[in-house]
Amino acid sequence: MSLSESLNMHRLALCQALDEEDGERLDALLPELRSADIAEILEAILEEQADPPRALALLGRLPLERRASVLGHLPGDAQLVLAEALSDERLLTILEEMGSDERADLFNLLDEGRRQRLLRRMARREREELKRLASYEEGTAGAIMTADYVAIPSGMTVSQAMMRVRQTAPDAETVYQLYIVDDQGRLAGTLSLRQLMVAPPGEPIDALMIRDVIHVPVDEAQEAVARIVARYDLLALPVVDADRRLVGIVTHDDAMDVVESEATEDIHKGMSIGSLEDGVSRVPLWSLYRKRVIWLVLLVFANLFSGAGIAYFEETIAAQVALVFFLPLLIGSGGNAGAQAATLMVRGMATGDVGIKDWGKLLGRELLVAGSLGLTMALAVAPIGIMRGGEALALVVAMSMVTIVLFGSLLGMCLPFLLDRLGWDPATASAPLVTTLIDASGVLIYFGIATAVLSAA
Amino acid sequence: MSLSESLNMHRLALCQALDEEDGERLDALLPELRSADIAEILEAILEEQADPPRALALLGRLPLERRASVLGHLPGDAQLVLAEALSDERLLTILEEMGSDERADLFNLLDEGRRQRLLRRMARREREELKRLASYEEGTAGAIMTADYVAIPSGMTVSQAMMRVRQTAPDAETVYQLYIVDDQGRLAGTLSLRQLMVAPPGEPIDALMIRDVIHVPVDEAQEAVARIVARYDLLALPVVDADRRLVGIVTHDDAMDVVESEATEDIHKGMSIGSLEDGVSRVPLWSLYRKRVIWLVLLVFANLFSGAGIAYFEETIAAQVALVFFLPLLIGSGGNAGAQAATLMVRGMATGDVGIKDWGKLLGRELLVAGSLGLTMALAVAPIGIMRGGEALALVVAMSMVTIVLFGSLLGMCLPFLLDRLGWDPATASAPLVTTLIDASGVLIYFGIATAVLSAA
Repeated sequence: MSLSESLNMHRLALCQALDEEDGERLDALLPELRSADIAEILEAILEEQADPPRALALLGRLPLERRASVLGHLPGDAQLVLAEALSDERLLTILEEMGSDERADLFNLLDEGRRQRLLRRMARREREELKRLASYEEGTAGAIMTADYVAIPSGMTVSQAMMRVRQTAPDAETVYQLYIVDDQGRLAGTLSLRQLMVAPPGEPIDALMIRDVIHVPVDEAQEAVARIVARYDLLALPVVDADRRLVGIVTHDDAMDVVESEATEDIHKGMSIGSLEDGVSRVPLWSLYRKRVIWLVLLVFANLFSGAGIAYFEETIAAQVALVFFLPLLIGSGGNAGAQAATLMVRGMATGDVGIKDWGKLLGRELLVAGSLGLTMALAVAPIGIMRGGEALALVVAMSMVTIVLFGSLLGMCLPFLLDRLGWDPATASAPLVTTLIDASGVLIYFGIATAVLSAA
Repeated sequence: MSLSESLNMHRLALCQALDEEDGERLDALLPELRSADIAEILEAILEEQADPPRALALLGRLPLERRASVLGHLPGDAQLVLAEALSDERLLTILEEMGSDERADLFNLLDEGRRQRLLRRMARREREELKRLASYEEGTAGAIMTADYVAIPSGMTVSQAMMRVRQTAPDAETVYQLYIVDDQGRLAGTLSLRQLMVAPPGEPIDALMIRDVIHVPVDEAQEAVARIVARYDLLALPVVDADRRLVGIVTHDDAMDVVESEATEDIHKGMSIGSLEDGVSRVPLWSLYRKRVIWLVLLVFANLFSGAGIAYFEETIAAQVALVFFLPLLIGSGGNAGAQAATLMVRGMATGDVGIKDWGKLLGRELLVAGSLGLTMALAVAPIGIMRGGEALALVVAMSMVTIVLFGSLLGMCLPFLLDRLGWDPATASAPLVTTLIDASGVLIYFGIATAVLSAA
């Protein structure tokens, strides 16, 4: 039985036991399900059945530790619904069991009054840590890091460090990469548990540790953090403050989540869709409408430039209506080629493959490639021009094709760089924007060439 | 100094030392650079300067272990260039130092004769393992897994297992997740090193281990593998054969690489660009041209349907040339809305958020959202219709807008599901394809409505 089959079977059995309020069966089934899977079922209960009491009852059947882990797997809106249905006391016990990064994320969702009430009931140390982690700006290393790492004071021996690892093991997010800090809390070095395990027990860790530790400042962008974790195959990446004091670590699984969600965001931006908080099947209809309508209406007005171009050339068109035959084809081709060029650049910039310093070199390459593409497409379309309206029309269409594809590709390539220079996200240079700009230019180029050639003929 | 600044500084110094053939300085600089960074410099030497001997000289200055690790970080084409310049003997020593997954990848790039020569010089056990790993189909769990995992025979005690971990540590890809196998080599359970460390030394591991291990078959698609690693926050995912025998593990860093490259591939497909072997700034011009031209030319011919539609309605157009004014606007808007819908579905399907079972529910949602979008855009464009040609034209344009946006969105939503049903990759339902199909339908809808309304008026 495959993983997803067994998951579906378990899910069905659980839903049935829930419907029948069969407590015994629930208690038998729940230990067989993983937190991520229970979270998915809870989410479905909350969204399809809009039944928070039922979700709470299911959550309440789990041991405390799993309650925290399941809650951590839920998207923000579902967490908030459940948190609002829980008493301060019950929420507090769950918060205490959560990882420090997930705790801070949930805390940030609550309203100000509740946050103050919860903070007052926490121990001082816990309170300070939570306030600190909750204060980092979203999208930075600080917002995705955890404070549950293993820090070893400089000067310990291997066996002392090993003892420290054993003590910290239950609470730490990872015990496999250790960070050595000096008496000021500054990051002095790192050591993997693997290295520690094979080292002589009496050896000072300062002699073993790697001093040149890859690390990031707390305000580093999360995309950059994820890229560093991926590039150097790290288990965790230490995060330091302005004084190089160690304040947290970003673990590989959180970095992977960033890579996934950044890719989704870039893909949506590439189609002029604002970023969605949740999957497309679950996000509210109103927000789906809102995320899509803004750009669509803006593009309607941008498209009016094409209309204006057409109005300007109305005489040429009236004189030879066959010109209209090629209009969608020509502006469509320019738009497609331009969207391709923009997509290649935007993704290259997002993965760090392309930088602004490569601009000159890439411009030369794009000129060559787009020129060849334009010529190929002109050759493909010229015979149809002859068939529809003779050689003069074929010439106009072929010339327009090369010019429009070349212009469209260069525009598509330059726009992401230009936006980046202006301090905007290059992913905003989306296919619809590029296409609309090229549509308008394409109209002018096509009818401009047509007017020149046909009036000369 | 930030990570990328220090990296750039080191890179510059290294390139200078290379130019001046300053061996002493090179030997001082190389230990300060990480394998991923040296690989990037080697790649630049190979591609910008096309100078394999120089790259080989740099590689030769590294200790053997790093040579293997740097080679593993290079893209396939660069690995092949270097491998072809190395003698069998030197290549063999490097291959022996590489991780088993990277070794198999490089091996698969070599020509048949060389593979046979190399295999003959290997020890029997090594040879069998390499042949096995190299035989798995690309894009499956087998192709990205490593055979360097820690397997603990069932029946050992905690202290025996610990001893085994210490022995295996130098060669294993990760020692932090251990896999317990029975005497047939079948996967019986798993245990993290963390759990092992805090357990009593005399305890049998069979009493401690988790028996319900998440695992995948060796022919599982790599996207599914990566999704499971991400979903359950795994350090590594065990891979089993048809008899449930453990044959390898996929580690978190390899899963992350899959997530990144799959996202890039989907983004490129979304713009009708074939998958590129390498970053856009480095891929050869000819292959960039080829990956883009096929779809562009196909779309040229698809666009001819729009032209045919226009030819059919030529009389209507000749009677009211003002209709052409709104043509790019209407078909552009339909294309944009359709591309948005297609993008949302394709990405939702890729991340596992949307399945074919959600189709009915999503269709209803899309009808509502697209209907609202169409109405909004019709309201935005109607006043311009009145300005340009009176109320009849405004009515035609508004009705066409609603119909085209609704039709385009539904087409964009259904196409990915349809392709999936046909066994194709839904990402092929790219924006240019959706746009082109909607262009043609838009022409028919617009001029059809125009002919009906204007001839009635």
